[in-house]
Amino acid sequence: MTGTPIALLPERDEHVERAIVDGGATVVDDLAAATGLIWLGGLDDFPNSLPDNVQWVQLKLAGIEAFVDAGVIDDRRVWTNASGFYAENVAEHALALLLSVLHQIPAAVTRRWDKDGIDPAMRSLQGATVAIVGAGGIARALIPRLQACGASVIAVNRSGRPVDGAAQTLPAERLSEVWPRCDHVVLAAPATAETRHLVDASVLEQLPAHAWVINVARGSLIDQDALISALDAGSIAGAALDVTDPEPPADDDPLWDRSDVIITPHVANPASGLHATMAPWVRENVRRFIAGEPLLARLEPGRDY
Amino acid sequence: MTGTPIALLPERDEHVERAIVDGGATVVDDLAAATGLIWLGGLDDFPNSLPDNVQWVQLKLAGIEAFVDAGVIDDRRVWTNASGFYAENVAEHALALLLSVLHQIPAAVTRRWDKDGIDPAMRSLQGATVAIVGAGGIARALIPRLQACGASVIAVNRSGRPVDGAAQTLPAERLSEVWPRCDHVVLAAPATAETRHLVDASVLEQLPAHAWVINVARGSLIDQDALISALDAGSIAGAALDVTDPEPPADDDPLWDRSDVIITPHVANPASGLHATMAPWVRENVRRFIAGEPLLARLEPGRDY
Repeated sequence: MTGTPIALLPERDEHVERAIVDGGATVVDDLAAATGLIWLGGLDDFPNSLPDNVQWVQLKLAGIEAFVDAGVIDDRRVWTNASGFYAENVAEHALALLLSVLHQIPAAVTRRWDKDGIDPAMRSLQGATVAIVGAGGIARALIPRLQACGASVIAVNRSGRPVDGAAQTLPAERLSEVWPRCDHVVLAAPATAETRHLVDASVLEQLPAHAWVINVARGSLIDQDALISALDAGSIAGAALDVTDPEPPADDDPLWDRSDVIITPHVANPASGLHATMAPWVRENVRRFIAGEPLLARLEPGRDY
Repeated sequence: MTGTPIALLPERDEHVERAIVDGGATVVDDLAAATGLIWLGGLDDFPNSLPDNVQWVQLKLAGIEAFVDAGVIDDRRVWTNASGFYAENVAEHALALLLSVLHQIPAAVTRRWDKDGIDPAMRSLQGATVAIVGAGGIARALIPRLQACGASVIAVNRSGRPVDGAAQTLPAERLSEVWPRCDHVVLAAPATAETRHLVDASVLEQLPAHAWVINVARGSLIDQDALISALDAGSIAGAALDVTDPEPPADDDPLWDRSDVIITPHVANPASGLHATMAPWVRENVRRFIAGEPLLARLEPGRDY
């Protein structure tokens, strides 16, 4: 066998297999013979222990809080997640959710030719200010789309380091300034202890009454009880959620069957296209691994993702 | 009274009134005293005859086929419609329709957490080719939005004169080349004898099976019987229609209650915001009228709009 041995587990996939080979490595099944591991599974079937010869593990998702919580991410090797790999898909879904609610498409689907109800409720992105909370890859992909629609963006990230195309970037500690200044909010932050219930009763009170909250990140970012109360009180216009807590919501969850809550079933990054979408990124990381260059989407040990 | 007298009929509107004044003219009620007329009504209550002192009539809509068919547009004065005035609104609605169907939002609204059905049906605009038929102001507004989503555009207009941002512009006589080469179609052409049933059985056969047809122009552009047949046969993925023929469709129209037909009630340019949206354009045309400069959206006498 020639080439750097990379294990592809727990399943083979033609797109990822080709990416590994195109990146310059050889695909193996045996972890004991592998210097790297591309893991296409979830947490449940992840190996209990990894041999030390595995110097790098590539996970397939950007949201890896389950791996972090389980203590799987160790400091004996390099770990990479898929942060940024699916950013274009997720950004497009966020835009689709935002435009569809502003343009009353869910209402039009459920109410035949309700012109009197729908026409005055139509809203445009032109001239609107959209806050993007968690300004990583998704924000970088979303900002040009929003700009093309005539919206301006306030980005919020940890550092406050300016994000290209944002009218303003604020650090996380100044988050509270954002709510009264924006028209709509897109949540794109990882699920951490800090971001849990980031959108709570107080935030919902500060948003304008015409605001839509779009969540393409993790359900835990929103206090759903507070959301329902705010919607009942008319504090905001509505929420379009690709993620909920739990998923799916229980059959009797008050989120269901409201015209001011739109739920897509966690499909912003479709599982059916995931391997094809991640393949070029895997190829690049394999190339970098072999060349000894810094890997894309490297996890920082000890950080709460 | 000072200033050029412009009549504002059949109703006053604060936005348009201010636009006329800001453009340098004086608002009058009496047509006999007016050199121009801003007509905020429809065809039904349009004056039977206009005095010759009215040298210019500004209509409020872009789609003025009813005025043309009724023979109202004469050659004794200059006529302007609102072509281009609402292009940004309509382009945003076209994008909202296209993204919402590609991202399965109507399906998500009607089917609770149907991840197995929705996930594999998700489609992206990234890398897609969108044909825009009738490449005027709406196309110019839509192209940058589609480009920001990673789509490329084939524009079709009368002349074939290249449209900024389109990967290719074709003249109307080469329209038949477009169908097999595009992923989706946006109809943005005026309703004329030539464009009636522009999308017919033959066109629907040539489109790819994953194609969505978006109509933000006029219902007459689509042969709706052929559309229903094509959908039943699975020739295309679906149609998202802001306009139908007639409007609204009859209660028993087969367009209703299909998951592959999305209908919004002719709200791409919301009537509720129309006067505010047209105001800056009226102001500019008033200024040009007084200055003797060519007016925006001037109708060509004898042309079939």
